[in-house]
Amino acid sequence: MVSIGVLGYGVVGSGVVDLLQKNGDKLRQKLGVDLNVFKILVKNLDKHKGRSPLLTNKAEDVIHEKVDIVIEVMGGIDPAYAYVKKALVMKKHVITANKDLVAAHGEELMALARENQVCFAYEASVGGGIPIIRPMTDSLAANDISQIAAILNGTTNYILTKMYKENMDYKAALQEAQRLGFAESNPESDVMGYDAARKLSILSTLAYDQKIDWKEIDVEGITHIDAQDIKYAKKLGCVIKLLAISKKKGDGIFAAVRPVMVSEKGPFGQIDNEFNGIMFQGDAIGEMMFIGKGAGKLPTASAVVGDIVHIVQNHKGKYGKVIVERKQPCHKWENPFQWMLRIKTDDRYKVMGSISELFSINNFMFDDAQDKGEVICVVEIENELSGYEKLRHLEAQGYIKGIKKIMKLEEIAS
Amino acid sequence: MVSIGVLGYGVVGSGVVDLLQKNGDKLRQKLGVDLNVFKILVKNLDKHKGRSPLLTNKAEDVIHEKVDIVIEVMGGIDPAYAYVKKALVMKKHVITANKDLVAAHGEELMALARENQVCFAYEASVGGGIPIIRPMTDSLAANDISQIAAILNGTTNYILTKMYKENMDYKAALQEAQRLGFAESNPESDVMGYDAARKLSILSTLAYDQKIDWKEIDVEGITHIDAQDIKYAKKLGCVIKLLAISKKKGDGIFAAVRPVMVSEKGPFGQIDNEFNGIMFQGDAIGEMMFIGKGAGKLPTASAVVGDIVHIVQNHKGKYGKVIVERKQPCHKWENPFQWMLRIKTDDRYKVMGSISELFSINNFMFDDAQDKGEVICVVEIENELSGYEKLRHLEAQGYIKGIKKIMKLEEIAS
Repeated sequence: MVSIGVLGYGVVGSGVVDLLQKNGDKLRQKLGVDLNVFKILVKNLDKHKGRSPLLTNKAEDVIHEKVDIVIEVMGGIDPAYAYVKKALVMKKHVITANKDLVAAHGEELMALARENQVCFAYEASVGGGIPIIRPMTDSLAANDISQIAAILNGTTNYILTKMYKENMDYKAALQEAQRLGFAESNPESDVMGYDAARKLSILSTLAYDQKIDWKEIDVEGITHIDAQDIKYAKKLGCVIKLLAISKKKGDGIFAAVRPVMVSEKGPFGQIDNEFNGIMFQGDAIGEMMFIGKGAGKLPTASAVVGDIVHIVQNHKGKYGKVIVERKQPCHKWENPFQWMLRIKTDDRYKVMGSISELFSINNFMFDDAQDKGEVICVVEIENELSGYEKLRHLEAQGYIKGIKKIMKLEEIAS
Repeated sequence: MVSIGVLGYGVVGSGVVDLLQKNGDKLRQKLGVDLNVFKILVKNLDKHKGRSPLLTNKAEDVIHEKVDIVIEVMGGIDPAYAYVKKALVMKKHVITANKDLVAAHGEELMALARENQVCFAYEASVGGGIPIIRPMTDSLAANDISQIAAILNGTTNYILTKMYKENMDYKAALQEAQRLGFAESNPESDVMGYDAARKLSILSTLAYDQKIDWKEIDVEGITHIDAQDIKYAKKLGCVIKLLAISKKKGDGIFAAVRPVMVSEKGPFGQIDNEFNGIMFQGDAIGEMMFIGKGAGKLPTASAVVGDIVHIVQNHKGKYGKVIVERKQPCHKWENPFQWMLRIKTDDRYKVMGSISELFSINNFMFDDAQDKGEVICVVEIENELSGYEKLRHLEAQGYIKGIKKIMKLEEIAS
């Protein structure tokens, strides 16, 4: 059994506890060991009354001899910083989702972890559920990274998306974001770009092997962007995004957070709402991009639990069974989709008639250059088996010389 | 020192050796240990004469007592399979880029590695330089994954991109791909979809904890796609991509490789040429996507060296110094870019005149609804410092009441 202490029971903390519960069987099978929550620290026991029998208001119940891994999801510097240091000194592995803490004291805490031969993991501090810290520290470690460009703040991306798609002005979009819980009542850290700067500092420090202090990053927020700016950007085929950019140039490193006009059709143009997107340029991999949910209860919890899995596998040497149970996949798509059909025939009118009878929705395509011996149409299919059944009916009619079909998937395309 | 034996010195093998050399200092600093290539196995010594003093044609020189990590980059099953088994039994960590081997014998080799308490790593076998295997095995392990949709074969994606963008027919595009080295002289494994099926089997087995045999995956290649299909797809706002898809539905798993029409504006619509894109759907993270170069010498080598870094850090317990050297970032963008300027003034003609004098390229925007007290234009800037200098000149002219500017970056947008 691996015993886990949790500091904080807010959005992320409760997400971690829920996710360990929900996918506990899967994790047990993978790791060959139970992940067990030992205690959960909250400030005010009364406020959380009845939510869990594991609650405590004493930090020493969580940072405890019996605990293997301490998860810090309180946020802020004080008392998180002191708690994390205490846990590391007690030789507990520590996982944090706290970007403020990592941006301010990350290197000190990593050094302390190393000294005590434990792990300090912080995947959830940047990009929410997107795996980015570990890919940078191992999978991409062979690369000399020359540039990072990223949408790292979900709140501002949500506001800018609303402004762009629904022609809202900044204030209305901010209020909408606050109403839906995407922005805090005091949104300063997000809308002024400080949150993005902290995350950029964490990524840049890893990328360039030099500490980039977030307070030294040039920051411009989105509070001055108005509906008219968005309108002009659209005219230019652009969308305005709050980008965090850092870039090597000779010995120098450029780093800034700024609203930037980028092409609607480019890699950042379609990363909307609470999604984050992180692009790298490495000398071996070239350009690479990660896109996913940058915030929220379960995406962030996913990153925290991913760190638990990493620690249990690599630092506690636990592994479950290798999967050898075979599964025969099925070959037929079971959801609705469309087919583009190209039907060779000498009697186009009869074919069009039959198609209209067989398929509920259909769109015939006409093309000047088209072979007159062909009917082209897009038909709606309930599922692939029923689609093949209908094609058999069609073929049985005799005046058809051949059918070619290509699947069209809205589900994956959108 | 960590001693590395390399089986094979083709495109990937030489890429690994080159990358270890090129970024050796960075890796030494990160790991606190030297990575040293011990011997490199080639079939025919004469063919590689003079390329490296480390070449040997005896496998036992590479799978050797003194070696810590064996890298298999020969490709194919025989003799790679026997060599990898031998190395694992000798308790050597093994890294492979060989998707044929992993798809055919992955589970057996993982079990053998576990039995011998060494690591069997295969990041490079899927998605080239994209970190995908490790993110799935740790960072995303907390998720119940319900769907994978991916462009996993660079050759077919290159051919389909040429057909789409340059109206080539299939044969011409294939020949072009062969000429440039993106397709092999016998392209069957790629164009028939077998390569994508092998990679889908590896990802799906990891995702669903059940072995999906690649031979049981329904495969349709791209050999029948013609210029007319592409033309019709365009009319529908779509692009044709060879997608590898697997999806949970109840107890069943659907798995197939097929040419699919997807929206030009959707997540797959702009993944072109040799790029791969891999999308997941997980219950905690929601939708997530990884995009990067799916093949090629250095991208694949990047994944192999990433596996070395992982093994050295996690299985040999080596770590370099924590980076604490601080670096003051600079705040000014040093490459050419554009600014959209919005200039408040009572004398629009004078402002337009001054802008035309100051900036080499400029586009004035006119808008019916525009405040007549404003000049709006997009100007070309050499670098940010010189841009600010020009703005100071402009402001000094007296008839300007305020300047608002938003950066436009082609470099990042495209």
